[in-house]
Amino acid sequence: MRYIDIRSDTVTQPTQKMRDAMYTAVVGDDVNRDDPTMLELEELAAKLVGKEAAMFVPSGTMGNQVSIMTHTRRGDEVICGELSHIVIHEVGAPAVLSGVMVRTIKTADYLRPEQLLPAIRPDDIHMPHTGLVEMENPTAMGRVVPLDMMRQNYELAHQYGLPVHLDGARLFNAATALGCDVKEITQYCDSVMFCLSKGLCAPVGSIVAGSKEFIDRARKNRKMLGGGLRQAGFLAAAGIVALTEMTGRLQEDHDNARYMAEELAKIPGIHVDLSTVEISMVFFTVDKDADWIAALPARMLEKGIKASGIEDGQFRFVTNHDVTREDVDHVIACMKEFMAL
Amino acid sequence: MRYIDIRSDTVTQPTQKMRDAMYTAVVGDDVNRDDPTMLELEELAAKLVGKEAAMFVPSGTMGNQVSIMTHTRRGDEVICGELSHIVIHEVGAPAVLSGVMVRTIKTADYLRPEQLLPAIRPDDIHMPHTGLVEMENPTAMGRVVPLDMMRQNYELAHQYGLPVHLDGARLFNAATALGCDVKEITQYCDSVMFCLSKGLCAPVGSIVAGSKEFIDRARKNRKMLGGGLRQAGFLAAAGIVALTEMTGRLQEDHDNARYMAEELAKIPGIHVDLSTVEISMVFFTVDKDADWIAALPARMLEKGIKASGIEDGQFRFVTNHDVTREDVDHVIACMKEFMAL
Amino acid sequence: MRYIDIRSDTVTQPTQKMRDAMYTAVVGDDVNRDDPTMLELEELAAKLVGKEAAMFVPSGTMGNQVSIMTHTRRGDEVICGELSHIVIHEVGAPAVLSGVMVRTIKTADYLRPEQLLPAIRPDDIHMPHTGLVEMENPTAMGRVVPLDMMRQNYELAHQYGLPVHLDGARLFNAATALGCDVKEITQYCDSVMFCLSKGLCAPVGSIVAGSKEFIDRARKNRKMLGGGLRQAGFLAAAGIVALTEMTGRLQEDHDNARYMAEELAKIPGIHVDLSTVEISMVFFTVDKDADWIAALPARMLEKGIKASGIEDGQFRFVTNHDVTREDVDHVIACMKEFMAL
Amino acid sequence: MRYIDIRSDTVTQPTQKMRDAMYTAVVGDDVNRDDPTMLELEELAAKLVGKEAAMFVPSGTMGNQVSIMTHTRRGDEVICGELSHIVIHEVGAPAVLSGVMVRTIKTADYLRPEQLLPAIRPDDIHMPHTGLVEMENPTAMGRVVPLDMMRQNYELAHQYGLPVHLDGARLFNAATALGCDVKEITQYCDSVMFCLSKGLCAPVGSIVAGSKEFIDRARKNRKMLGGGLRQAGFLAAAGIVALTEMTGRLQEDHDNARYMAEELAKIPGIHVDLSTVEISMVFFTVDKDADWIAALPARMLEKGIKASGIEDGQFRFVTNHDVTREDVDHVIACMKEFMAL
Repeated sequence: MRYIDIRSDTVTQPTQKMRDAMYTAVVGDDVNRDDPTMLELEELAAKLVGKEAAMFVPSGTMGNQVSIMTHTRRGDEVICGELSHIVIHEVGAPAVLSGVMVRTIKTADYLRPEQLLPAIRPDDIHMPHTGLVEMENPTAMGRVVPLDMMRQNYELAHQYGLPVHLDGARLFNAATALGCDVKEITQYCDSVMFCLSKGLCAPVGSIVAGSKEFIDRARKNRKMLGGGLRQAGFLAAAGIVALTEMTGRLQEDHDNARYMAEELAKIPGIHVDLSTVEISMVFFTVDKDADWIAALPARMLEKGIKASGIEDGQFRFVTNHDVTREDVDHVIACMKEFMAL
Repeated sequence: MRYIDIRSDTVTQPTQKMRDAMYTAVVGDDVNRDDPTMLELEELAAKLVGKEAAMFVPSGTMGNQVSIMTHTRRGDEVICGELSHIVIHEVGAPAVLSGVMVRTIKTADYLRPEQLLPAIRPDDIHMPHTGLVEMENPTAMGRVVPLDMMRQNYELAHQYGLPVHLDGARLFNAATALGCDVKEITQYCDSVMFCLSKGLCAPVGSIVAGSKEFIDRARKNRKMLGGGLRQAGFLAAAGIVALTEMTGRLQEDHDNARYMAEELAKIPGIHVDLSTVEISMVFFTVDKDADWIAALPARMLEKGIKASGIEDGQFRFVTNHDVTREDVDHVIACMKEFMAL
Repeated sequence: MRYIDIRSDTVTQPTQKMRDAMYTAVVGDDVNRDDPTMLELEELAAKLVGKEAAMFVPSGTMGNQVSIMTHTRRGDEVICGELSHIVIHEVGAPAVLSGVMVRTIKTADYLRPEQLLPAIRPDDIHMPHTGLVEMENPTAMGRVVPLDMMRQNYELAHQYGLPVHLDGARLFNAATALGCDVKEITQYCDSVMFCLSKGLCAPVGSIVAGSKEFIDRARKNRKMLGGGLRQAGFLAAAGIVALTEMTGRLQEDHDNARYMAEELAKIPGIHVDLSTVEISMVFFTVDKDADWIAALPARMLEKGIKASGIEDGQFRFVTNHDVTREDVDHVIACMKEFMAL
Repeated sequence: MRYIDIRSDTVTQPTQKMRDAMYTAVVGDDVNRDDPTMLELEELAAKLVGKEAAMFVPSGTMGNQVSIMTHTRRGDEVICGELSHIVIHEVGAPAVLSGVMVRTIKTADYLRPEQLLPAIRPDDIHMPHTGLVEMENPTAMGRVVPLDMMRQNYELAHQYGLPVHLDGARLFNAATALGCDVKEITQYCDSVMFCLSKGLCAPVGSIVAGSKEFIDRARKNRKMLGGGLRQAGFLAAAGIVALTEMTGRLQEDHDNARYMAEELAKIPGIHVDLSTVEISMVFFTVDKDADWIAALPARMLEKGIKASGIEDGQFRFVTNHDVTREDVDHVIACMKEFMAL
């Protein structure tokens, strides 16, 4: 049975072109830098984001963590948003792997320079040393950061000698929403991580890009984390399709999300802040009791829809390559029916 | 020349009784548990705070960190106030020494149960595991936490299986302000750190107290951090005087702080929120430009007063055993003079 | 051009059956445990080694490190051979990721109980706490540990309450050499890591197996290290072929290695200890000067052979699925020619 | 009752001059660098060992660990002797605090350049990065390293760009045994830790010395470990006496140890390698069964002697300031009596 899966864009199935590319991929031992398909992907990825070098990692989490390890020294503090992925969704890795603390900023949407400035610690023997600024674009909450805001944060960080890492898990969604080339975004960071999976549909993998010197050191840290793979060209082959065929179609997911948000907003008892719908994610609240809320995922499943339960008071529905406009209509219809219960 | 030192209560000189006690102290090798004076101090300290066992540490920072190490596993998250000492004034130690992240709560004054509850992470493979709740009383900002608030936080934490560590660096100031026995405070924590130095005037050292099993494990962690001392009985001798002679006189420091606060509040251009003056610390802001502010410590020094520069927009003046009511009058007179400039 | 690659068995190309299985693999989001092919692989792997549960990891390094993390607490010491993979070839990960020290035993071949016993630390406040015993079979030097030796180490470790982790990167080579079922080996460990790549030819990935409780905790640690993959079923599909089709053919690689060793031993100036050739690896020394030694890899490459340079005074040639008996003959012929120079 | 304590030199009682100096010490808050006695000690200590700067630490363990932290980055490997203090007696701290592994060298007595050289890792993506060489003089086993050997190790390390830390817990014993100024020893290291306690009789504390830049960074790491003390001048006052009055008298302890060793060697069934008695420590074995061995400490205690139990097959008796020649005679007499049992 086919399900409509709106839990996340991480559930996307690889495309037929990806399967074809994997089937015929020429592969070698990438730990020895012998995999031609991987070398091709890394060169393509670096070029796309305007950095000297790039490196494949098996997950976005590893990409962020290897970047933090490479930028910082133990005892440093990383300034980032309170709801950022590295804080909430990476299992406490910054402290364990890098020995760094996170200095979390409560933001309405994204980090702003007037919040960044007071978070930079002075040189004081009592205090942690600020070692890195981490931004997200889009944020883990689906918000897109304007280029000028990125520029201001980046320049402020550099003024204080701080490197900037960008968690761009959905970087191409941000570029799509901003209507710009990804390089216009990544010019405002020293390192960037972006995913080949998620909206771009590759089965496994993300990219870290930065200066050649940075990637050289990151490669050794990746090995330490267990991210040195052998015949990784299979994954690279799918990744090349992701970067060459899939980045241009994300507007479709965004349009579907906007349509879903507008339709949900019309249903009595559902509250969507339409101004927050910028990519493929729709957050909303419902005027319903705990039992109704707890029952929703199972009810949706009966209708052929996989949806996540509530988290921090909000539902999140996500469009993606495998969700059509008709699927959205079905979701809306079901939500109308359930809200009437 | 004698200075009036209002930078902190950490600058207090040991009393003559402490010097006498140190001079004649019977000492042994405390790593071997052979120092009778240290054994006496630790027994006394445990009894005072109503815990099974206690252990001397050379600093409050070590006391907090050894407690965090003993309570947590790597990857855990510690819930605490955003301005707490372990976050700002312990050099990023939680991440380096224990591999734990801090989950910082923005508080008006102190952590409350309605903030604590949503900060406890659910059981989710993406998320750090909440491993410890850390409270301060008084807080690093000099605020005293009511017993009922401590009780609520403590009970909530235990309901979720979380241990509670209390940073009671100035625990006896809290008890003085609350008009209660320290045991009434420490009943609401699983481990507590309090300082023998600061307001109690011992030259060096703090105490960690908790269950016997906890202290046994903490003792090995203390050794790892380099806190296993040899003839530590000298410091213990002063600590015994601190606990038997000095805990009852803190009201005097509080009265002097209140008097200072009220007098400062009368000076035009100085703003003191009197409701925040609960122990020996007075925080205030001034309607002055950056040059005036930067010059204040040097000007005070010319008048025989050691005062700290501004931090996060506020001045902090601290009374202590070496600051008399006349000293406070001199401080006020100087501030009046400088504010008129 | 086709090369004969005897640098390692990590360079093996996936088989056509693996490519076919990957092409048609049914995949899902494995972080959500939604990938049926991965679930199938993990169940199969657990069954093969006689453990309750198993988990895929993208590399052997991650498999070993996630096992160390899951067994130990920070400050523990891991007893292992001086030349073991976790000491030399995992970039110092045990200290960084787990905060553990390695207590390395100098062995002629493999760890023995009479060496293990004195390496277990007594309960002493000065000393690290022994937390884990790590064995390899085969060792990183290609030696096979007899079952009885494994049993003795295992029983000794358990007598002291210590868990045992087995780095079985080439576990099926060990079983082939011992002529036993892998379960006979893995019965003497609490957790085991073995590779699907290397001699078994899968492109990417290894397995960690152990008790259900252990694997549940390991899964969260894997996520922290960035080893939580999305549509990982592609890699699992190849892994299933590796475990069902490839484990039975390793004797061929062993025979080729023995043949190569015997032929090399006949060449004047080459020294092979034939008693150490137990799996697919041949170590040897040469009576040649530094220039000759340094030039060998390039000379071999001209003959279509990829061979590693000398390491710690020894050359290592490795047979594998892509190296035929004729290839071995070519290697021998070339070595004869070069030794005559 | 007065005991003869030959368990260690850590048990030494402070001298009367030390008590007097502590009684009248002028003290301040050393975290603010306001303690004049501490400043005096640190300046004196730096000058004595010929380094730019020095820093007090509350224990030798902290001194070694803060040095390791300051020299290394996470993932580094520290080359040191297998029996060195940082490996066996510092609770696994290198891995926990600094995230570094130890690469331990089995030595007959002390590390030699021919062992050091092959232990330095090449630049290889699989391997830990060698970050520090650690020497001891005297070693934890009481052996004195000749100056030329230190020079060779030091020069070899520097040739590979590696800093050298010297654990000189008993540095003045080494200088006494070598008949040289301590500066002749410390010229062959980049940082040195030596104890004010132990043979020099100060109650608490050690010194770390090195370049000014090194000590500046070490001071922040000391704060992180909880080694920032307040009115530490009391301990500094005793330390100054240790450095000015006690370093010249260690030959007496060495003579007593040699005398004890020679007399023990005369007792049938006791085996002392006299060539290993270079400072105040005497190691010996006995031809006795386990019961006799286990009973010895209690038997000695009945005779007024505190002696340690056997460790790794050897007894260790240590002379010190509180052990007179007559005390040694009493020890010998008792051992004769017990050996006859």
